[in-house]
Amino acid sequence: MDRDRIREILEEIRGGRLSIDSGLERLRLLPFEDLGFARVDHHRGLRQGWPEAIFCEGKSADETASIARSILDAGSNLLATRLSAESFEVLARAVEGVRYNPRGRTAVKIVNPPPEGHSVLLLTAGTSDIPVAEEAAETLAVLGHAPVRVYDVGVAGIHRLWSEEKRIEEAPVIIVVAGMEGALLSVVAGIARVPVIGVPTSVGYGTALGGLTPLFGMLNSCASGTTVVNIDNGFGAACAAHRILQRIPRRA
Amino acid sequence: MDRDRIREILEEIRGGRLSIDSGLERLRLLPFEDLGFARVDHHRGLRQGWPEAIFCEGKSADETASIARSILDAGSNLLATRLSAESFEVLARAVEGVRYNPRGRTAVKIVNPPPEGHSVLLLTAGTSDIPVAEEAAETLAVLGHAPVRVYDVGVAGIHRLWSEEKRIEEAPVIIVVAGMEGALLSVVAGIARVPVIGVPTSVGYGTALGGLTPLFGMLNSCASGTTVVNIDNGFGAACAAHRILQRIPRRA
Amino acid sequence: MDRDRIREILEEIRGGRLSIDSGLERLRLLPFEDLGFARVDHHRGLRQGWPEAIFCEGKSADETASIARSILDAGSNLLATRLSAESFEVLARAVEGVRYNPRGRTAVKIVNPPPEGHSVLLLTAGTSDIPVAEEAAETLAVLGHAPVRVYDVGVAGIHRLWSEEKRIEEAPVIIVVAGMEGALLSVVAGIARVPVIGVPTSVGYGTALGGLTPLFGMLNSCASGTTVVNIDNGFGAACAAHRILQRIPRRA
Amino acid sequence: MDRDRIREILEEIRGGRLSIDSGLERLRLLPFEDLGFARVDHHRGLRQGWPEAIFCEGKSADETASIARSILDAGSNLLATRLSAESFEVLARAVEGVRYNPRGRTAVKIVNPPPEGHSVLLLTAGTSDIPVAEEAAETLAVLGHAPVRVYDVGVAGIHRLWSEEKRIEEAPVIIVVAGMEGALLSVVAGIARVPVIGVPTSVGYGTALGGLTPLFGMLNSCASGTTVVNIDNGFGAACAAHRILQRIPRRA
Amino acid sequence: MDRDRIREILEEIRGGRLSIDSGLERLRLLPFEDLGFARVDHHRGLRQGWPEAIFCEGKSADETASIARSILDAGSNLLATRLSAESFEVLARAVEGVRYNPRGRTAVKIVNPPPEGHSVLLLTAGTSDIPVAEEAAETLAVLGHAPVRVYDVGVAGIHRLWSEEKRIEEAPVIIVVAGMEGALLSVVAGIARVPVIGVPTSVGYGTALGGLTPLFGMLNSCASGTTVVNIDNGFGAACAAHRILQRIPRRA
Amino acid sequence: MDRDRIREILEEIRGGRLSIDSGLERLRLLPFEDLGFARVDHHRGLRQGWPEAIFCEGKSADETASIARSILDAGSNLLATRLSAESFEVLARAVEGVRYNPRGRTAVKIVNPPPEGHSVLLLTAGTSDIPVAEEAAETLAVLGHAPVRVYDVGVAGIHRLWSEEKRIEEAPVIIVVAGMEGALLSVVAGIARVPVIGVPTSVGYGTALGGLTPLFGMLNSCASGTTVVNIDNGFGAACAAHRILQRIPRRA
Amino acid sequence: MDRDRIREILEEIRGGRLSIDSGLERLRLLPFEDLGFARVDHHRGLRQGWPEAIFCEGKSADETASIARSILDAGSNLLATRLSAESFEVLARAVEGVRYNPRGRTAVKIVNPPPEGHSVLLLTAGTSDIPVAEEAAETLAVLGHAPVRVYDVGVAGIHRLWSEEKRIEEAPVIIVVAGMEGALLSVVAGIARVPVIGVPTSVGYGTALGGLTPLFGMLNSCASGTTVVNIDNGFGAACAAHRILQRIPRRA
Amino acid sequence: MDRDRIREILEEIRGGRLSIDSGLERLRLLPFEDLGFARVDHHRGLRQGWPEAIFCEGKSADETASIARSILDAGSNLLATRLSAESFEVLARAVEGVRYNPRGRTAVKIVNPPPEGHSVLLLTAGTSDIPVAEEAAETLAVLGHAPVRVYDVGVAGIHRLWSEEKRIEEAPVIIVVAGMEGALLSVVAGIARVPVIGVPTSVGYGTALGGLTPLFGMLNSCASGTTVVNIDNGFGAACAAHRILQRIPRRA
Repeated sequence: MDRDRIREILEEIRGGRLSIDSGLERLRLLPFEDLGFARVDHHRGLRQGWPEAIFCEGKSADETASIARSILDAGSNLLATRLSAESFEVLARAVEGVRYNPRGRTAVKIVNPPPEGHSVLLLTAGTSDIPVAEEAAETLAVLGHAPVRVYDVGVAGIHRLWSEEKRIEEAPVIIVVAGMEGALLSVVAGIARVPVIGVPTSVGYGTALGGLTPLFGMLNSCASGTTVVNIDNGFGAACAAHRILQRIPRRA
Repeated sequence: MDRDRIREILEEIRGGRLSIDSGLERLRLLPFEDLGFARVDHHRGLRQGWPEAIFCEGKSADETASIARSILDAGSNLLATRLSAESFEVLARAVEGVRYNPRGRTAVKIVNPPPEGHSVLLLTAGTSDIPVAEEAAETLAVLGHAPVRVYDVGVAGIHRLWSEEKRIEEAPVIIVVAGMEGALLSVVAGIARVPVIGVPTSVGYGTALGGLTPLFGMLNSCASGTTVVNIDNGFGAACAAHRILQRIPRRA
Repeated sequence: MDRDRIREILEEIRGGRLSIDSGLERLRLLPFEDLGFARVDHHRGLRQGWPEAIFCEGKSADETASIARSILDAGSNLLATRLSAESFEVLARAVEGVRYNPRGRTAVKIVNPPPEGHSVLLLTAGTSDIPVAEEAAETLAVLGHAPVRVYDVGVAGIHRLWSEEKRIEEAPVIIVVAGMEGALLSVVAGIARVPVIGVPTSVGYGTALGGLTPLFGMLNSCASGTTVVNIDNGFGAACAAHRILQRIPRRA
Repeated sequence: MDRDRIREILEEIRGGRLSIDSGLERLRLLPFEDLGFARVDHHRGLRQGWPEAIFCEGKSADETASIARSILDAGSNLLATRLSAESFEVLARAVEGVRYNPRGRTAVKIVNPPPEGHSVLLLTAGTSDIPVAEEAAETLAVLGHAPVRVYDVGVAGIHRLWSEEKRIEEAPVIIVVAGMEGALLSVVAGIARVPVIGVPTSVGYGTALGGLTPLFGMLNSCASGTTVVNIDNGFGAACAAHRILQRIPRRA
Repeated sequence: MDRDRIREILEEIRGGRLSIDSGLERLRLLPFEDLGFARVDHHRGLRQGWPEAIFCEGKSADETASIARSILDAGSNLLATRLSAESFEVLARAVEGVRYNPRGRTAVKIVNPPPEGHSVLLLTAGTSDIPVAEEAAETLAVLGHAPVRVYDVGVAGIHRLWSEEKRIEEAPVIIVVAGMEGALLSVVAGIARVPVIGVPTSVGYGTALGGLTPLFGMLNSCASGTTVVNIDNGFGAACAAHRILQRIPRRA
Repeated sequence: MDRDRIREILEEIRGGRLSIDSGLERLRLLPFEDLGFARVDHHRGLRQGWPEAIFCEGKSADETASIARSILDAGSNLLATRLSAESFEVLARAVEGVRYNPRGRTAVKIVNPPPEGHSVLLLTAGTSDIPVAEEAAETLAVLGHAPVRVYDVGVAGIHRLWSEEKRIEEAPVIIVVAGMEGALLSVVAGIARVPVIGVPTSVGYGTALGGLTPLFGMLNSCASGTTVVNIDNGFGAACAAHRILQRIPRRA
Repeated sequence: MDRDRIREILEEIRGGRLSIDSGLERLRLLPFEDLGFARVDHHRGLRQGWPEAIFCEGKSADETASIARSILDAGSNLLATRLSAESFEVLARAVEGVRYNPRGRTAVKIVNPPPEGHSVLLLTAGTSDIPVAEEAAETLAVLGHAPVRVYDVGVAGIHRLWSEEKRIEEAPVIIVVAGMEGALLSVVAGIARVPVIGVPTSVGYGTALGGLTPLFGMLNSCASGTTVVNIDNGFGAACAAHRILQRIPRRA
Repeated sequence: MDRDRIREILEEIRGGRLSIDSGLERLRLLPFEDLGFARVDHHRGLRQGWPEAIFCEGKSADETASIARSILDAGSNLLATRLSAESFEVLARAVEGVRYNPRGRTAVKIVNPPPEGHSVLLLTAGTSDIPVAEEAAETLAVLGHAPVRVYDVGVAGIHRLWSEEKRIEEAPVIIVVAGMEGALLSVVAGIARVPVIGVPTSVGYGTALGGLTPLFGMLNSCASGTTVVNIDNGFGAACAAHRILQRIPRRA
């Protein structure tokens, strides 16, 4: 997992500076810290290019705050998602300088600014899809990218989308957030050449089935080469965009 | 159900020409013929404006032929749907002059030409949706309407649809047949003012779920005022169009 | 989309009154207003014959009020659906003269009376289906039509329905609102010649599956030519009725 | 389970005619025969009032024939359900005098005529539901009851049902067999005072979901006091009717 | 529906005491009262043998009270199901002498004692199934029957059931209420000769799927001749028992 | 069920010390106590090796306390699961010396220490799975075993798991608690030779489907010989471990 | 994974007999053989105690035979599951001495007899469950255990089960194979103290849902401490039994 | 869609070389060819970077061949997916030089070699996933990329995966094809920094639910930033990879 580190250990063994048994143990020893209830993995940033985010749903406000402190103490940037306004109050008292996005339900504190990334186009079909898009936008920002928000451009009024055609053609990656039938993904991906990531949302009622309908709609998109993430997973879409963008050279 | 007929019976009773017990019985007596295994309702045409169609799936070729003869003997037009080529062979031997549509899997014999109806626009998203559209087209024809077929205009290549914009604006009723994510319904209904009926198809694989995905997609259409029929139900869509068209005056 | 407008632009270009670049831009420019969080499309009324309605579920009371003001400022009629009594309080303070229907959970303000439309028959199977029917009734009224409410005529006491037989035969369009097994649609459509639109409701428990059971029941109706809208979608059923009624001449 | 038998054993023990260990063993010993692959329980007839039926689906023709012989050897009546025409050939060679019903896919041999039972009304909504109804009819006959077949009286042509109203009022038990939306159960149970048993069928396509739609429709029937059996389970419905009829005195 | 009444009308017409048009109208006129939001059908008792019950879920306390008064004013007995303690408070203020069963969430007022019926055995698998059983018990009592409650006798401790074997053998009808895997139905029906009605309950978590698991388990019972009602539908099971018991002579 | 007891009764009968009728009755008589609403089975401990646990969901605090007292009065150990903090307050007032685990939502009182058992390895994929693991841990402790908690070792950071490899190889039984995709089970069972029991959790959102996704994932594990219990059923996993451990000799 | 092997490598490095880079490579090198289309893992037997089995569904007869030869060449025992009679013909020509079980659809060749194991009790509810039980029986035999087959003892005739009570009490592990409602698991586990593994089968029709109903029924078993494997997975149940039995001392 | 083309048309209009009406028409005119049953869109390659592929499932062999000829006549490369061996025979007679991949069920003819692309890592969990991977491999090749096949490296033998760790770290894009529980995606994405695309397969039985289980498992992956395509959609995964790779500079 950490080839250089293993090489180092092997060299110490060869040099006799480390016993074989200690070497064995160190080969097992991996860098994570045990908080008792959550093993925060500070090296994930090194390995994969993004910080440990806290998914706050199902965690108490105190647990969230405790994990947040541990992350910041390790010098990493903080991103908390699915954070209720009430839990943010607790977090804000525990950690200073955290910024809250009430629509996206995210909290962010940057202690180590990321290198400048790319512009990412963020489209939503309706206004109810905006919270999920905002979660993606905040995640992109923490990763160094600039979200370009174009909201409420669903296919029933498809003329609204045409005014954004240039942006669609020029973005290096597009994220399409849509509930209901999820048709926006197909239309956008039919125009764009670039990677288009669909995020189905749980917006809607009845046969929207909590997001399964736009999910299945997006998976069955008649536009080739689209991919999707889990329902309401704005964070995941942003991370997927980041995986793509890391290898793309910045435009001059 | 048949107010005039009941009035007649009551008048006969008052006039003493009919005993009360016979009157009671006649009030119960309703016009259908018992074939033993299927009660063919020849008066449905009178009541609702279309002939009894034979849904052939699950019926033997002989049963189909027997019902067909009974319908034609009563002077009604014949429409058989979901008819395999093999069963058509049997039918063709039993009844002469029946025309078969192999793509739509329908058989038709007109003995009583319907009054001239309207043009109905029939759109499909892909080529695999055509069999269902053809079932609708044949049903429309039996009901006196002229199907206008515009096939393979799915949203991933939405520019194909624009060349049909004028037809979309002028049709009195539009039927949209689509599998996969079913998005064509929303786009068309976002342009058209007229009734738009969606027919989800069982085309697709994996998460298309045998047509549930386009069905749910169409039900969640972000374009207001669309309605849908059952999966693959081209016959039903044509009947629904006919219910609408009966009251619309023909264009001069 | 707006052929006349494009023609005008082309004529200005030919006449040299408009540069090509400005022309290009104007061809893209489409009439919608950006509120930041929702693009209200005031021209939809022109294009399709109904005003922009506000679906309030998942919107804050303040967002609702803000969108409502924008709609009314543009001179359009206001229809808000799925509006809680609490949110109505906020709306009523922001906009004067709005009428609330607590059973249908709708708010309406007519500033521009629609042309007189048709009578539409609204049937419900039970009393619990009434809220959905009321949403349809209010939408019909905004569109200029007169809802004829006949409630609680489900098939278990099918004799209740017979007393409405004349209305069923004479209505230009019928909307059937039913939960549980949704059987009312089949019975009514077996009598009526006219378009019958089914609205499954989420009424019921256990295997009613939040409305999927009446939805699937209605889609499998043994009465030909029925169509359905999404679960609980009274608004959509009324819009579908309106699409049909626009072409039907008013009775003398 | 067999109080008298246990009493006998206890009396033998008290009388010293049976050792305690033998008594213990005999208390465990229960009357069934081991064929190696199927334990035929000949005493079920004594205990519950009906013979062991063979459910042939998934059994080889030879297994079926072998079980059939064992049942007949024990002096019981034979009823085989879900028996293909091919397997019947094998059975007919092995056992003489077996009668086959090709629509119901049942085989019957009566060696011990049952006491005369009741008339049971068997309704189907369509012609495709008939095979399931025939399975019920044959089962009823083996149990001594007289099936009264009234087929193809679905609710879309509800007038057909009225001509059967008297039979509905007089039957001691009614079995309603219906696919599609299953609405016939509600209408019939809304008229009848007697037990009404619904059998959903797997007839239909798309959203009929292999019979789940009529099953759920029937479970949500708005007519009180209806019960249902499994999809396509004509045999089970007949057995349920028999459980009811055993205590009802025959009409003079 | 009311043959005698129709005969009377026909006789008045013949006698010239009634005009044909008035006769037509009276033939349509059916005995139900319009409360505006619910058509209370007071004659259902005559037709089917039980009073109109109020299903209170989804009704306001005031609606419930208003319907209750209408039922009692017509001289019928009152049964309200799914009634919260809060709504009962309102009902108790509106109508005096109503008895509330907090476990079964039912309210009852008998103004017209029913004829003496039968004993009905009510089994539950666990303690959590008791509320549904209590709803059945109260319904049975209103219908004149005596519920015999045997609760918490699930199959994991099957020896508990044996002590009830005599009751199982002697009851004219058995109702089995069970959640989780619903196995109690099969075991009981394997012992009993009489009708056994299963009521699956929504008790359980995870894969109990809100009661679908015991429902499907019961439908697939390996004991022949069992029937089921909807999930948690204690009221329906009692009505089904009543349909059966009406024809069974009382034991001396 | 209790061979010795039956032998004793038979011997008393033979010896004439017991009448046959009394003997019959005693054979039926089984050791459980009737609290009215729950039959507490104190002998289950003797028969199967664990005490009666109280599943508190859906029980009132008073019912829980009453059952708890009955269990303790019989000299058994007490284990209550799914106990809210509020209900614990009531229990704590009714019974003294009960210990509450707020994460596992369990209450325990040991009055009869179990024999010393084994160490059981308890793994969780994430921090949100801990409550279910804690329920298992407390159950194990009541049964005499020592839970070894290793939490938050999911496969996305699979290196964390390697540091636990030795424990995985040495544990006599492993319980893997995981939500989301449930992949941890496969990885662990691919390493370990011993029984590995999977507990899917309802952690996650969207397509986690309340735990069905990890459940199905675990059932489809590509590692042979794994078994699973119901979603969130930590108690059941511990009991299954106990069934296994009873026959395994303790390590020296 | 192989601590001793790693130690060896480290010692070679310290001794200078191995360069660091070669050591790094060897640390990665793991023992499996590449057939091109399937990596047969011969060391799995060493690591987990069972041989590589071939799951033949979806593999061509030639692929199966090729993998079989590779396994036997490595000196391991062969077990092929889900093997059609046709594919066995091919296998029998390629490898001599293979024994086929047509009911279980398994092929076995023992080249290296396993150490003597335990008796395992195998119960089925019906005769249709036998193929799955036979797959388990054959797998157990390959692993050295003796399957004790007790078939067709379902709960509807629960007295059949009592004659097996002693075996249930004495078996070290019990496997219960059941379709339909899966109730046998609960009844058996309510009697037995030992590990009980449920295998739901896809036997049944309609709402058996291809085995989901007995699966969910078994997961919701009211008998504590039961576990289940995937639908029809007799192989997996035997492997799970083997994991348990490895640590249990053989009875004298 | 084609800004330059529109500019040209506008310039012709300004220059008077084109009438306004002709201009209007040309603005609508879009480049696709109408074969009657399928509109082949030859310009898609220009717009999005890949040729029109033929999805052959549900198309007759003749339709496939006809579309293939049209594509090749237009000078595009041919890729046909889901092509049965029988249909390939027909295609091979119609078009010469087509290469068939029987495992991937694809046919390819390159007439216009694509520019050299990247290496793409293709992993499968088992051998049964290979057909889907081969479809992806062939698609990648048509698009100019070099598939690197590493098959049968599922997580139950996770040590097999470690030998591929270097490739995982270096690939610009990874495609993970897996059925059963789909866990391979999480493990790979936990190691890799680059885009990882999951393709769930319909391999497996019972609760694999035709691929829904690995699909949902992958969507719930605990490794951030993964995306998925539809079940068995190897073609789609390759297209998604191509969208990503178009912007990534080739390694020196």
